[in-house]
Amino acid sequence: METIRIQTGRAYDVVISPGGLKDLGKFLGERQKECKICVVTDSHVAPLYLEKTQKTLEESGFAVTTFVFPAGEKSKNPTVLVELLEHLAEESLARTDLILALGGGVVGDLAGFAAAIYLRGIHFVQVPTTLLAMVDSSVGGKTAVDLKAGKNLCGAFWQPSFVLIDPDLLQTLPPEEYTCGMGEVIKYALLYDKELFQLLEQGKEETELVCVIASCIRHKQAAVEADEFDRGARQFLNLGHTFGHAVELASNYHLSHGAAVAVGMMAVANAAKKKGLFSEEETNRLAALLQQKGLPIRYDADRELVNAAIGRDKKKAGYRISLVVPRRIGYCELMPMTPEEAVEFYAVGGAF
Amino acid sequence: METIRIQTGRAYDVVISPGGLKDLGKFLGERQKECKICVVTDSHVAPLYLEKTQKTLEESGFAVTTFVFPAGEKSKNPTVLVELLEHLAEESLARTDLILALGGGVVGDLAGFAAAIYLRGIHFVQVPTTLLAMVDSSVGGKTAVDLKAGKNLCGAFWQPSFVLIDPDLLQTLPPEEYTCGMGEVIKYALLYDKELFQLLEQGKEETELVCVIASCIRHKQAAVEADEFDRGARQFLNLGHTFGHAVELASNYHLSHGAAVAVGMMAVANAAKKKGLFSEEETNRLAALLQQKGLPIRYDADRELVNAAIGRDKKKAGYRISLVVPRRIGYCELMPMTPEEAVEFYAVGGAF
Repeated sequence: METIRIQTGRAYDVVISPGGLKDLGKFLGERQKECKICVVTDSHVAPLYLEKTQKTLEESGFAVTTFVFPAGEKSKNPTVLVELLEHLAEESLARTDLILALGGGVVGDLAGFAAAIYLRGIHFVQVPTTLLAMVDSSVGGKTAVDLKAGKNLCGAFWQPSFVLIDPDLLQTLPPEEYTCGMGEVIKYALLYDKELFQLLEQGKEETELVCVIASCIRHKQAAVEADEFDRGARQFLNLGHTFGHAVELASNYHLSHGAAVAVGMMAVANAAKKKGLFSEEETNRLAALLQQKGLPIRYDADRELVNAAIGRDKKKAGYRISLVVPRRIGYCELMPMTPEEAVEFYAVGGAF
Repeated sequence: METIRIQTGRAYDVVISPGGLKDLGKFLGERQKECKICVVTDSHVAPLYLEKTQKTLEESGFAVTTFVFPAGEKSKNPTVLVELLEHLAEESLARTDLILALGGGVVGDLAGFAAAIYLRGIHFVQVPTTLLAMVDSSVGGKTAVDLKAGKNLCGAFWQPSFVLIDPDLLQTLPPEEYTCGMGEVIKYALLYDKELFQLLEQGKEETELVCVIASCIRHKQAAVEADEFDRGARQFLNLGHTFGHAVELASNYHLSHGAAVAVGMMAVANAAKKKGLFSEEETNRLAALLQQKGLPIRYDADRELVNAAIGRDKKKAGYRISLVVPRRIGYCELMPMTPEEAVEFYAVGGAF
């Protein structure tokens, strides 16, 4: 078991504990007075873990209500958010009560956002069930829903008050979801951690899972503690995401988030190589590692759609993207540029 | 012209300037780089002041887009909120752009909440057009929309970055709206300010309007600076609101907010009198002042509905309301009690 304490405005513990789900009630009981908890989860996770979660909470004296919504990014919208808020109000949750997100990134983003705005903010707990949520989205307090014009356009910075990561839950994760999370793991390795990169190249991640998850969270911790509200250092975490989000949108979400980030990392790495900023050898290592883990390195999206998504704000004069550009494995730099320049940059790398 | 600087986490100026609307662009230009501004207003205010507002902003170099929704509390709901958010996204507002609330409490609450969550938070400016918004809701950063189960159940603490109060705008305010705002003015007088109470008794508020508004804002300033997130001192501002909100709901919003607060203040004053906590003479002075300003001192609502609304959280064991009880004009105390005890307390005062 590992405990990592995140020192944001309101500090909180991330506990990584294989098999820890059955002790969730105990973990919470040590940190929180008895209260009512609304467990939010989706239709994939509910049949697997909702009963077990409810049991451990009730055994520790918590009252439990549940909210289950249809699995998938399509549910991360204002309509489902409002249904959840109305449910919380019907169940008379008070300021001292708690929301618990049991699921992947969509569940965490939606439940966390509801926690941020219900009664102008109540506490919430993350119990991630996907690799993506374990290594990335459950820590750092970014919550959101999508609007018609794009992903995550409406949300809040709202830190959880506790995160329990039980890697055993990954045993039920579909392989393509595991691969998707691996895209974010490789992102952390390329950004900050050449030892992690090597460990992944050697295929040791399954035997070293707690270590891999803890490494990613420590890197995220450093970025989040330096920049809770995403005005500076945290922008590095967008590595692969500018192009990635655009491709994800252009694919009409047929591409998973992790796969889109992989394509985005490769697009920026290829361009950096052509510009002499990133070596050919390391570009090849990145391509090989992504493919070894089952991730795509390019995607034939409609060029116009991708460019439009990159330039979503281009009507606004002077708007700049901070593109995250790899210089070595484990070290990247920010390059501010206009959306037009970013489109140009990707084109140099042969992304189209 | 008076300027009051509110020292919350992010400090901001409240400028009270008769005729100041025509200089809004100049005021903002001194505080803010050129950007795009979305002016949010309602169908009552738009025909009166939208063109003038747009003109002063454009003359100072700001790009302007507008969002007008049907006037009334019924619009303060998640559906209109989401329409506004989608409009902001369609207009490509960026993190460095601005929302401007031109209107009363409903406009400020809705536009402020949109500003709190659009792109996880952008700046917003309040230009209140009602007495209620000028003396109370435009300052302090409480933003919200209503849910089916009750008022303001979903929102955020999000301070404006500037507030311009132009008392000349009250010239077009319907008399019943003016009366409604007077309910909150009397609340501040009963809570903190016996000189203000006397000034109101003498009917001098119209000639001393800037002074009356500034006094209320200074009282609110003290409460908000001591307790930005409403965990302590700020609870005093709920004077008259526990019973008031319940009556407002039980009347199905036929009673205005200010009138409901007046009824609520009188209910708590009568009970305090019966309990020997508040003098008969001052109880009579309060009743006389409320009536002098055209406000009701009781309302025949359905007793069951009122009690249910007071006890909205009563299913939850141990839940306590902090009732604000007057001891003298200009001095109140907090009395924690269960919802059942609160219902009892009001009954003692003959509220039913």
